[in-house]
Amino acid sequence: MAEKAVICEAIKAQGEVVRKLKAEKASKDQIDEEVAKLLQLKAQLGEDDGKHQFVLKTAKGTRDYNPKQMAIRERVFNIIIGCFKRHGAETIDTPVFELKETLTGKYGEDSKLIYDLKDQGGELLSLRYDLTVPFARYLAMNKITNIKRYHIAKVYRRDNPAMTRGRYREFYQCDFDIAGQYDPMIPDAECLKIIHEILSELNLGDFRIKVNDRRILDGMFAVCGVPDEKFRTICSTVDKLDKMSWEDVKNEMMNEKGLSEEAADQIGEYVSKQGGMDLAEHLLQDPKMSQNKQACAGLTDIKQLFSYLQLFNVVDKVVFDLSLARGLDYYTGIIYEAVLPQADVPPAPVSMEAQNGPAGAAEERVSVGSVAGGGRYDGLVGMFDPKGRKVPCVGVSIGIERIFSIMEQKAEASAEKVRTTEVQVLVASAQKNLLEERLKLTNELWSSGIKAEVIYKKNPKLLSQLQYCEDSGIPLVAILGEQELKDGVVKLRTVATREEMDVSRTDLIKEIRRRTTEA
Amino acid sequence: MAEKAVICEAIKAQGEVVRKLKAEKASKDQIDEEVAKLLQLKAQLGEDDGKHQFVLKTAKGTRDYNPKQMAIRERVFNIIIGCFKRHGAETIDTPVFELKETLTGKYGEDSKLIYDLKDQGGELLSLRYDLTVPFARYLAMNKITNIKRYHIAKVYRRDNPAMTRGRYREFYQCDFDIAGQYDPMIPDAECLKIIHEILSELNLGDFRIKVNDRRILDGMFAVCGVPDEKFRTICSTVDKLDKMSWEDVKNEMMNEKGLSEEAADQIGEYVSKQGGMDLAEHLLQDPKMSQNKQACAGLTDIKQLFSYLQLFNVVDKVVFDLSLARGLDYYTGIIYEAVLPQADVPPAPVSMEAQNGPAGAAEERVSVGSVAGGGRYDGLVGMFDPKGRKVPCVGVSIGIERIFSIMEQKAEASAEKVRTTEVQVLVASAQKNLLEERLKLTNELWSSGIKAEVIYKKNPKLLSQLQYCEDSGIPLVAILGEQELKDGVVKLRTVATREEMDVSRTDLIKEIRRRTTEA
Repeated sequence: MAEKAVICEAIKAQGEVVRKLKAEKASKDQIDEEVAKLLQLKAQLGEDDGKHQFVLKTAKGTRDYNPKQMAIRERVFNIIIGCFKRHGAETIDTPVFELKETLTGKYGEDSKLIYDLKDQGGELLSLRYDLTVPFARYLAMNKITNIKRYHIAKVYRRDNPAMTRGRYREFYQCDFDIAGQYDPMIPDAECLKIIHEILSELNLGDFRIKVNDRRILDGMFAVCGVPDEKFRTICSTVDKLDKMSWEDVKNEMMNEKGLSEEAADQIGEYVSKQGGMDLAEHLLQDPKMSQNKQACAGLTDIKQLFSYLQLFNVVDKVVFDLSLARGLDYYTGIIYEAVLPQADVPPAPVSMEAQNGPAGAAEERVSVGSVAGGGRYDGLVGMFDPKGRKVPCVGVSIGIERIFSIMEQKAEASAEKVRTTEVQVLVASAQKNLLEERLKLTNELWSSGIKAEVIYKKNPKLLSQLQYCEDSGIPLVAILGEQELKDGVVKLRTVATREEMDVSRTDLIKEIRRRTTEA
Repeated sequence: MAEKAVICEAIKAQGEVVRKLKAEKASKDQIDEEVAKLLQLKAQLGEDDGKHQFVLKTAKGTRDYNPKQMAIRERVFNIIIGCFKRHGAETIDTPVFELKETLTGKYGEDSKLIYDLKDQGGELLSLRYDLTVPFARYLAMNKITNIKRYHIAKVYRRDNPAMTRGRYREFYQCDFDIAGQYDPMIPDAECLKIIHEILSELNLGDFRIKVNDRRILDGMFAVCGVPDEKFRTICSTVDKLDKMSWEDVKNEMMNEKGLSEEAADQIGEYVSKQGGMDLAEHLLQDPKMSQNKQACAGLTDIKQLFSYLQLFNVVDKVVFDLSLARGLDYYTGIIYEAVLPQADVPPAPVSMEAQNGPAGAAEERVSVGSVAGGGRYDGLVGMFDPKGRKVPCVGVSIGIERIFSIMEQKAEASAEKVRTTEVQVLVASAQKNLLEERLKLTNELWSSGIKAEVIYKKNPKLLSQLQYCEDSGIPLVAILGEQELKDGVVKLRTVATREEMDVSRTDLIKEIRRRTTEA
């Protein structure tokens, strides 16, 4: 078989790759990945080559959540959903894949990171890249002109994973968006308020919310002499300032994107500026910026935004930062991003005084990265509407995976034991042949809404039953024996104190409830 | 461009398909699908052909959930998760895609329904088909030998959708599984108990849980003269008895699967039998079945199972039904499936008296279909373990989409209005220029954990603010005016009764809480 020969060749070549990596002492991740490919090739030879060796791993850039991680995840979600509900949001859900076409042309340079499904006949499909484009498709499809909704779901990006830093190929997004024609900056301010509430309540330490406006960026590009058709691509390059030094960004602008050095230097001067409402006022007086209509509209809105943020008591954490660009194509107005500055990096100055030069700006950007972001996208729904009708939208996306990573590290570091179940009582026995009585009592507890477990053995040892409670944090044990059955009682034991007390069967439910809501 | 010419050809041909379907007055679904293909082809021609027309639809067999559907979904999930937690389950999560290889060879004939991802370099991936195989992979990968966990997530099948009946290509599964080496039938009985609890609590009307055992089926096939290598494929055919008549099933066995008529008829006789513990006892005396070791082991376990079900008080809904086969390859012991018989179909007999012949059995199967199912799969984890170590497992999967469909129909039919937010109070004003005061008060309410909204307009009309409350079910309005601000009060209005009352700012939070927890 010719095909088989091809696979055998590929196996040989891949074997060589693995050997080489091992010889080079490459990273475990890298070797594992190549080994996985090798095993997959071997698997393609079919089941006939003796014992089939499974590749026991999750897909690259993805992970399982174990019960402890899920317990932490549930806690984080509860805080976030609580905040969204406090602000009156409804929720919707959309499918994990969309028609490929729906996603086309929405993400600029990042489109190459979209996962496509195999063409197995029928429609061409892609996994969703974010929740915003499906939201816009949903609004247009259902002719909805105003809604405040949240959506929590997984999205997919074929990015280079950096899992220790919480960057995955499959990750949750928690989005809150307000669609509708409203007076300027009121919904926008609420989005920033929501970021502030969530990050505060999660207790992640200090944070900062950077704000900018696409119209200010575009105006800035115009006055710096960037040709119109290069706005989006230069914007993508500016967006890299949180990962790259100014020198590298400047090089990319000049060498890859063909910008003049003069224009690049002028951009460099602007993007080093940070401040608050006063910076917006200052720029409205700037001889060049003040000549650009777009920029002025953006700066006026920034001023308005800051006035609402004062009312919402969140202005202390917000910085107007001209280097903030955000990669996605669809933003049209205000954009923002929340970052957690690392402990050893001084917080960004909130005064109007710009840091002196791009080098300083680059330094501030040493951070664990963005934990929330968003902005205004007034044109996206119109791209889907057959008649191009626009629905103005503004929204925020919480970068939940990084937050999970931080919370997990915190849980690891703390002494507190994370419980993974909510079981209140284990039904146990010290004697043999009481399985049926244990099951009957457990059934009674379930019927009354008590969270209860029983060991699935005919005659488990009392010690192992107690050990099970210790291990999983179950606070109470209801112990049955011949004598207890005769007396119509249950021995109720508190695991922590080892105290035991006879409780009549009729009072048992009440007593368990009392003891477990007390705790 | 040659490629362009090919696409143009394809567009012409596809246009013809659409015209023909319209002429034939084909179903809207069918036409829509072909139109979508046509538009996708047109889109491939690129953006240069003038205005780009988007296909505004979700992928075939999938749907969005609107806020009302989400509210119902949340209610259903809360009941199910509440039950799983009451039984002491932890939860885990796994990625939406697995290495293709992980899914290969686990689903028998259904494997053709797996969605593959496009090969974009790197690993070959497929969307998960269920949550059971990823669970087994997770156990083997992490060397876990016992766990009780639930997992609620979406799974994917390229099946023929029947969306009005709640059958989708993307759908939720709610799985509860117990892994570990325990005494026979105790965890199995708990799984049935859980189905019983959930279906009762959801209040879906009458239901029935059919039980059988793969070993009984295999024993039955053996004594009916089915060759060993045909067990699995004949089993798949028997599984169709809930959708096809016995005659059709028999035909498939003989014509497609090459079984003799004699063997088929013998199977037909067995699969018409239904009963309880007494049927198991009866079959243990059956001259043919009693000779088969496998069958006897299965029948003995069924007897044991029914004794535990009696203790759990659920035996009234459970039927031992020899026609229950379940399609998936991985089951090794007890299998079960819960069905909602339609109102006009008589409930299945619980007595040992078998219905007379396969025709009767087929009739009973007119139902809205399975709403839960599961079974024992003791070999699956071993398929992943490098050393083949087995971890016995039993589990149940709740067919949540059909349940959603039923609940939605119920909500439609009832007068009760489904609220989609939990907002307690709207902060409103009758006068102009009070936006800032409204925002300030709203901020105070948020800070105290009150769910509050404010209209995003500078000067909204009072009437439209009150109308908003009526529409979205917000029970209270906090009205601000110049006078109220001067007096340090807020006019608190109950939307339902239109009663208004001045409340001092200091008492407002307490008063809102009192009124909304009362309700």
